[in-house]
Order: sequence, then C-alpha cells, then structure tokens
Amino acid sequence: MMLKYYYDLVSQPSRAIFLFLNKTKIPFKKCRVDLGKAAHKEEEYKAIHPFQQVPAIDDGGFKMIESVAILRYLCRAYPDHVADHWYPADVKQQARVDEYLEWQHAHIRFHGSMYFQHKWLLPKLSGEPPKQSSVDRFQAGLETALDHIETIWLKDRSFLAGDQITIADLLGVCEVLQPTMAGYDVFKDRAVLSKWFENVKGQVGPELDQANFVLNKIAANSAIQQAKL
Amino acid sequence: MMLKYYYDLVSQPSRAIFLFLNKTKIPFKKCRVDLGKAAHKEEEYKAIHPFQQVPAIDDGGFKMIESVAILRYLCRAYPDHVADHWYPADVKQQARVDEYLEWQHAHIRFHGSMYFQHKWLLPKLSGEPPKQSSVDRFQAGLETALDHIETIWLKDRSFLAGDQITIADLLGVCEVLQPTMAGYDVFKDRAVLSKWFENVKGQVGPELDQANFVLNKIAANSAIQQAKL
Repeated sequence: MMLKYYYDLVSQPSRAIFLFLNKTKIPFKKCRVDLGKAAHKEEEYKAIHPFQQVPAIDDGGFKMIESVAILRYLCRAYPDHVADHWYPADVKQQARVDEYLEWQHAHIRFHGSMYFQHKWLLPKLSGEPPKQSSVDRFQAGLETALDHIETIWLKDRSFLAGDQITIADLLGVCEVLQPTMAGYDVFKDRAVLSKWFENVKGQVGPELDQANFVLNKIAANSAIQQAKL
Repeated sequence: MMLKYYYDLVSQPSRAIFLFLNKTKIPFKKCRVDLGKAAHKEEEYKAIHPFQQVPAIDDGGFKMIESVAILRYLCRAYPDHVADHWYPADVKQQARVDEYLEWQHAHIRFHGSMYFQHKWLLPKLSGEPPKQSSVDRFQAGLETALDHIETIWLKDRSFLAGDQITIADLLGVCEVLQPTMAGYDVFKDRAVLSKWFENVKGQVGPELDQANFVLNKIAANSAIQQAKL
C-alpha cells in the first residue's frame, strides 16, 4: 500500500515533507487537506490526525503526525531512497541535525508563524486590521531568530547542520520563507542567510519552486500590496 | 574524558537528562550552572552554550545543546548503558517516541513553562503581582495540553509512546510537574495522568525524587502559600 501524504502547501512543514518526498522519489499518494475550506476540521480527518492539523502520513496503516518526527521516520523507513547526507547515520553528525530541529520549534517556527498569522492570516479571516503590538512583538522575535540562524547555526558552515544539506535545511528553508507571505523580506541585509538560501536552492533544484508554488503566489501579492502602501 | 553535564535542576529539561544519566548510570561530571546567580549569563559559558541556557553537554570535546537532541544522542552514543526500551531501535516504535517529543515543545512545554514564569518566576523577580490575564491564558493552554496528554497520548497506553517507559516519559514527567512549582495541582481530577505518573514512578524509582529535589521544595512552599490565601 503506497504511502499516503496529507498536507496543504500553505503550511510550512507540509512544504518541507512535500519537498523531501519529491526529491528522494519516495512513491506517495497526494491527499490534499484544503485548509482554506477547513477540510482538516471534518470529523473523519480525526482518524488520520487526532489534533486535526497537517501534515500527517499513513504508511500502510502506520499513521504518524508531527513533521519533524515524520521526516526522521521517512529517512529510516526508506533507506533505498534516502541518501545518507539527508540524515547522517554517524552519531555526531545526526546529533547536529537533531539539535537544529529541536531548536527551531520555539524560535524561527514560533515567531515566523505567529508573525504570518497576526500580520496576514487573522486580518484576512476577520476583515479587521492587524493588531500592531502583536505584529511588532513577533517581528522582534523573528528577527532575533534570523540573527541566530546567521551567527550561530550558519557560523562556519554552508548548511544548518554542517557542510552537507540535511532535512534540517529543508524544514529550515520552509520556515524561513513563511513570513514572506505576509510581505516581510527575510533576506534584506542578510548576506549569510541569502548565501545559505542559494546553497539550498543549488542542491534542491526545481522541486523547491514546485513546493513553494502557493507561497510564491501569496508572497508576490503581498509584495505588490506593500508597494502600494 | 568523562561526559560533562551543564544543568540546573530548576529547569525541567535539565531534570530530565539528570534523571536519565543517573538511571542509566552513564558516568558524568556534574557542572551545575546556577541560574539563580545568573551563572549562565557569564561570558565564558558562551563557549559551552551559544544561547547561554541550560542544559548542555560536552562529551570529550563534542558540545551539544537542546535537551531532546541530547537525550537521543546519549541513547546512540552509550548503547552499553542504555536499554533498548528507552529509545527503541525498531523504526516504528522509535517514531512514536519522536512524535511525542516533537509535539511537546509547543504544547505542554510552552504552556507549562509560561504558566510557571508568569505565575511564580516573574512576580518573584520583579516584586510585582502576577499579570492575571497572562496567567489565565497560559493556564488555559496548559489545561488543553494536559487534556490532550490524557485523551490522545495516553489513550490505550501505559506510557506516552507505548507500553514501555521511554525518554518521552522522562521529559514528559519533568514538563508536567513544572507548574506544580507555581502551586498548580496538575493531577487534580486527572485519573489518567495520575495513573501514568504512578507508572513512571514505579519504573524510575528513587532517582525521580533525587532529580525533583528542588522542584518538590518549591512546590511545597507554593502549596503552603496557596493554602494561606
């Protein structure tokens, strides 16, 4: 039974796994869960994801949630498809990948998501203008996280967990790009981050634009709106 | 060179690793970083932990941060000390452990820590009373997370990731207990959570009280203060 993948490309961890599955050519069945139509809130989706979120997988009856855990699982369950560099078997190299993946939850993911939600998503859903104090707070957190990616995680390294691309970079790039949908230019005055993004693009190739199709469309509209203000 | 462990038992992930090291008898050198004296803010500690937090390890020159990543690393780096049940080699069982460990960051850890900080730590440091709206918000998040632990993670299971104790339970128990330092009784009207706590205590034994020495002292004082109000 082919792996079923439940996702919506508006969600950053959904994009990371989509990218990984396409890049490694693990065969999978696309099961889009349209967040815009609240498909994740339908009662039957609870059998797939008890918290009714995306992404999730069903691998021949083995159901899993939590994107970071799913990425690790896929590396172990599909060794014929997954080259060692994505999640190195070496204990210390693997630890470096894990270290970033645990750090990102409360930092770039938390602040980047909250910035996007408060600046773009909530105003869109409610028709009310953004609450500026919340936007400012999450923007400050986002900028600190971007500073730390540049000065700590990318210090003396080409990629987030060393000198080769890993699953940390795939999740990293999807989280870093999330605020661009709300019109925020994460690469402005950030030479280290920009260089890393080029490195990731160089390794991933056209699959990156494929995963970012929805994001790039929304980001372009937000940039036009920003320019009009 | 013996593993050096940097920690303060007032921090919940510090307690989880302390518990794990004691329980598995991995030899380690205690390097306490006294948060109360701001020892983590000293310049030289940056060489151990670039974000100046606890916990951290230095394993013969290999420095690591992020508690969840450290727990996984120790399981892999010290196989002679670590029984398989702590982090099963089986791909699917390991995935269940990872799944909980990724979930907990933004849920029980986030809300439990923030409740503790806003109810107890910040008022203690500032001499000002707690900001009730913040306390209420994080208490609501904490209660939802506790509900989810009972109804989802512990549904049909004795432990958080299956029928055996794993590193998920060690981190879980340390996070769940954190709000007790602010006088919150996490076990009140929670039969499933209480039963799980008894299961964990039964497996861990006296090392649990040893790791919880500071927590139990602060929790007892908070309970007395609550009783006086």
